Amino acid sequence: MRLVVPVSGSDPKTRLTTVLSPDERRGFTEAMLADVVDAVTAAGHEPDVISTAPLDCAAPVTIDDRGLDPLVNDLLTATVTDDESALAVVMADLPLVTQESIERLFTPDADVVLAPGLGGGTNAFVCRHPEFRVDYHGASIRDHRRIAQEVGAETVEVDSRRLATDIDEPADLAEVLLHSDGAAADWLADAGFSLSLTDGRVTVSRE
Amino acid sequence: MRLVVPVSGSDPKTRLTTVLSPDERRGFTEAMLADVVDAVTAAGHEPDVISTAPLDCAAPVTIDDRGLDPLVNDLLTATVTDDESALAVVMADLPLVTQESIERLFTPDADVVLAPGLGGGTNAFVCRHPEFRVDYHGASIRDHRRIAQEVGAETVEVDSRRLATDIDEPADLAEVLLHSDGAAADWLADAGFSLSLTDGRVTVSRE
Repeated sequence: MRLVVPVSGSDPKTRLTTVLSPDERRGFTEAMLADVVDAVTAAGHEPDVISTAPLDCAAPVTIDDRGLDPLVNDLLTATVTDDESALAVVMADLPLVTQESIERLFTPDADVVLAPGLGGGTNAFVCRHPEFRVDYHGASIRDHRRIAQEVGAETVEVDSRRLATDIDEPADLAEVLLHSDGAAADWLADAGFSLSLTDGRVTVSRE
Repeated sequence: MRLVVPVSGSDPKTRLTTVLSPDERRGFTEAMLADVVDAVTAAGHEPDVISTAPLDCAAPVTIDDRGLDPLVNDLLTATVTDDESALAVVMADLPLVTQESIERLFTPDADVVLAPGLGGGTNAFVCRHPEFRVDYHGASIRDHRRIAQEVGAETVEVDSRRLATDIDEPADLAEVLLHSDGAAADWLADAGFSLSLTDGRVTVSRE
């Protein structure tokens, strides 16, 4: 089983531009990555981080500036060569993940295990089928269900809020402060973010 | 174990006003409620639906126009009188729930089991502790953690995307079309809604 954490290190998290400077987006990206690496390591895996540009990380980082689809599909081709081999891919912007939520990804003994993200993405998967390929563009969870079906791969989905919560937009930051005490939550608190109630809805504000 | 599904039947889902007429908001609310009642029933429970106004529903409906906090706190007082009794409350706007996700709510044998909603809400809970009370205002999951701690109740949280996904805003509708084939998904399709890709993000459009 190989476990890869791909991350965009060059100009990460552009949808947070309204609330974070470029340097802050990089720092917050590294903090989220640290949470993912911690959870994956606690679950007994040795993550390979593959970044488009150099990043600070406790795990080994390989630089590869290809897009996500060619990168992951090449990894699938190279890694999942028979029924005994497997590749797991866990996104780097999931600071709510815990040892338990990562373990749930590996519990089903299916050809393909998908962890849907909010908004139609695919935040993590395990592949044990040599013909499965990814297509992260658009509503990727639908494409991944279809691709798995087309190659005859038995597919299971993991029902995890922690795996589903990828942090892309300012509104997502509240989830980190509500449900994590890891590196990303510490980073946000240090940067002056706190929870705020607006019109009965929970959001974040900054000092 | 008593299982209650509270629902606002009078002017439901006002944050969907921009995309649904008042009659449509009522119809969609009934469809989401049907999905919740189906999942709860499939998991072996007999739900009591408590609505602020009459609604179509396959389960028995009691009309009670009190706010959510006094209603649920009175139910807790009346139902959870000792260590052998329990009350479960499952919100009515969770059309992604399945038999399995409802069963996960009842798996931990803790005093209080909380299912967090996205945005800081509490979408479902099971209470086996006579002193636990609710406060749904604001970031209720934090208040419920605090209240449970104050009364010395052992608390477990269920990590379920399906229980976490309450449908309040137009953007939430995409989750229904992506992850359900129940009554609410059928209702949306019949009303002309379909998934749509805008700037690489998944949303819904209407014919």
